[in-house]
Amino acid sequence: MDYEHIIYAVEDGILTITLNRPDKLNAFTEQMRTEIMDALDKADADDDVRAIIFTGAGRGYCAGADLSRGGSTFDYSKRGYAEGEVVRDGGGVMTLRIYQCKKPVIGAINGPAVGVGSTMQLPMDIRIASEKARFGFVFAQRGVVPEACSSYFLPRLVGISQALDWAYSGRVFEADEALKGGLVKEVVPHDQLLPRAREIAKSYMERSSAVSVAMIRAMFWRLLAADHPMEAHQIDSRGMVAMGAAADAQEGVSSFLEKRAPNFTMKPSQDMPDFYPWWEEPEFK
Amino acid sequence: MDYEHIIYAVEDGILTITLNRPDKLNAFTEQMRTEIMDALDKADADDDVRAIIFTGAGRGYCAGADLSRGGSTFDYSKRGYAEGEVVRDGGGVMTLRIYQCKKPVIGAINGPAVGVGSTMQLPMDIRIASEKARFGFVFAQRGVVPEACSSYFLPRLVGISQALDWAYSGRVFEADEALKGGLVKEVVPHDQLLPRAREIAKSYMERSSAVSVAMIRAMFWRLLAADHPMEAHQIDSRGMVAMGAAADAQEGVSSFLEKRAPNFTMKPSQDMPDFYPWWEEPEFK
Amino acid sequence: MDYEHIIYAVEDGILTITLNRPDKLNAFTEQMRTEIMDALDKADADDDVRAIIFTGAGRGYCAGADLSRGGSTFDYSKRGYAEGEVVRDGGGVMTLRIYQCKKPVIGAINGPAVGVGSTMQLPMDIRIASEKARFGFVFAQRGVVPEACSSYFLPRLVGISQALDWAYSGRVFEADEALKGGLVKEVVPHDQLLPRAREIAKSYMERSSAVSVAMIRAMFWRLLAADHPMEAHQIDSRGMVAMGAAADAQEGVSSFLEKRAPNFTMKPSQDMPDFYPWWEEPEFK
Repeated sequence: MDYEHIIYAVEDGILTITLNRPDKLNAFTEQMRTEIMDALDKADADDDVRAIIFTGAGRGYCAGADLSRGGSTFDYSKRGYAEGEVVRDGGGVMTLRIYQCKKPVIGAINGPAVGVGSTMQLPMDIRIASEKARFGFVFAQRGVVPEACSSYFLPRLVGISQALDWAYSGRVFEADEALKGGLVKEVVPHDQLLPRAREIAKSYMERSSAVSVAMIRAMFWRLLAADHPMEAHQIDSRGMVAMGAAADAQEGVSSFLEKRAPNFTMKPSQDMPDFYPWWEEPEFK
Repeated sequence: MDYEHIIYAVEDGILTITLNRPDKLNAFTEQMRTEIMDALDKADADDDVRAIIFTGAGRGYCAGADLSRGGSTFDYSKRGYAEGEVVRDGGGVMTLRIYQCKKPVIGAINGPAVGVGSTMQLPMDIRIASEKARFGFVFAQRGVVPEACSSYFLPRLVGISQALDWAYSGRVFEADEALKGGLVKEVVPHDQLLPRAREIAKSYMERSSAVSVAMIRAMFWRLLAADHPMEAHQIDSRGMVAMGAAADAQEGVSSFLEKRAPNFTMKPSQDMPDFYPWWEEPEFK
Repeated sequence: MDYEHIIYAVEDGILTITLNRPDKLNAFTEQMRTEIMDALDKADADDDVRAIIFTGAGRGYCAGADLSRGGSTFDYSKRGYAEGEVVRDGGGVMTLRIYQCKKPVIGAINGPAVGVGSTMQLPMDIRIASEKARFGFVFAQRGVVPEACSSYFLPRLVGISQALDWAYSGRVFEADEALKGGLVKEVVPHDQLLPRAREIAKSYMERSSAVSVAMIRAMFWRLLAADHPMEAHQIDSRGMVAMGAAADAQEGVSSFLEKRAPNFTMKPSQDMPDFYPWWEEPEFK
């Protein structure tokens, strides 16, 4: 697939996905969604990609849904769906795909991020912002509902009280408020945004086993829904048995005892423990 | 119903419920509970009420259960329950009702709030405090247990570690500690309390669709219990289809493109999407 | 049982469990685990123990798994398990036991805490740190997975984004970062660590019913998994009926009205409400 609405660039093991409709503040399109999902499939299959950064080209991160259809933008009956067909929110199809990613995902928010521009960030693992970033969960101001599974993700990231405050008002807010509210981890000068995002990505790669990292991503996100720590105990016991006897554990302990950097060789594409994935993705219904 | 233990006052679309036994620091009674629940029914049915503020008359917010029965205050066998009757905690009956509310609920805590005075605040969406406010989850000091579903709400609002610290000690603490611990969003000078609460309420009304706001309240609170973001995706997909084709979405996008304030016309009393409510309230058993 | 790898000391109703292999930075062993679990059984059965503090002897808190087996440290096939036997992670067996404790548990982290040294702290109720403490969820650097049910506990304590950041990088971090990230409640000068931990423990004992405290510990931790506040309502209604009619509630209200310290007499070993425990512990499978 050739990409038109995003740029796909891998350097030093880090994939940067740049939303790329700068003249439209990278407003979200079906094509952009399809390209992002294809890019994530490619990244997950490529062991040379160890981390993923999302950012935007030009002045904005993502201005939200493209409103060129005007008042009927959100009227799905005008989008060519068949009678009786179950319509799925496109933003949610994409955030569910990000949720399933095997690699760490970092949001590097360079400018305004509104609507799906904000909600698409929520299944990412960590977000940092330029001083020029702005955020808005604007759905109440457009007369619709929060989409892209944001009612799952946002209260879990920032607490229900802050989540409700942003969504009820639908207001656009500054990077500092996002930091204070727990939405982003750091606010940095604009020209430091990508260097800092890459520095964070490197910290997840330099001394870490790629298979361990993929297991951590699945365990932490999936076990948010656990009913008892026993569920974690069952997974981590199996994980310790499978990983503990494998090459990366041998190298991890040996390199530590020898006070040198580890040289891990296991690959997410082929060396995940055999019980991975241990869950079934639910069907849409 | 005529109210004696509360005051019900609507102004500019904001309902203020004032706990009103000022000579008793608004100590909680069965009558107060009954009146609050009636007031919430009235507010939910009245489209002219767009937000609800709770506050207290006089020096206190709510001193907790009325202890005029002394040591046997919490002995339900002395309250006229029949043999074998299942007793329900009155505080919990009320917090479950607040939880079900369709309108944003703001706590404006003006003074001491102890026991049920603190736990009744937890299903509210946001709390702000006067510098004179104090809080106490004092149940361990009274030899009873945290009530009013606070074992559900408090750890979700402030984290389990802070929740346990407050409940184990049962100590009364200042507004600043409530702020630092994440229980309240802001602490303001005493005379700014109601003006600030009204300002927040207005921010949830001025540019927001009332139906969107009612959907947000249900989605965020209910999906706290979701086991997977797919559950959110199913609700928000249906929500986007239903709301996206309706009048408020048309107006929301049009007003945005025309750079003017929206004039939403849909009403929570009659225009909620037809799949709302999508849940069944569990029975007490 | 005589203890060799821990010290068990009760003073003024507070049990201090000191990890005690100071020449190994208290590296974790099967024997240490067995001793800790025995100590917790003893503490739960002893009504004279009202709170539990964990700390470490010497310069470290706990350096993690003892790596004296080198690269095959985590290879369970070399640990004498029978063919087909289901292996359980020892750290998890212990954190599940801490999770079940009836008494408040306070971590007083005096120095480096790495691997299981950090994850064992997570089911404790509250953690405070010396300025000399350090923490590390180092599993990715060792080529294994987070253990001891940390994928359940850590995201619930510090949020998923912070949890992922620490686990992906596996880096060792300072006490101040632990404070900022929400892992510890306070950082204190080194010589103030145990005095402050004891002060906190006393605040959970001085005016609090021991039975109320045991109920709070169970209610808050168990109801983290509740799907609806109704589940809390069912437990706290039963709790209020059972406790409200008992001696501690009589004393709690009377002492408050008489403006004196309460003198509670009920004991966790024999006076828990008859529906306690209301849950069944899940089996490992």
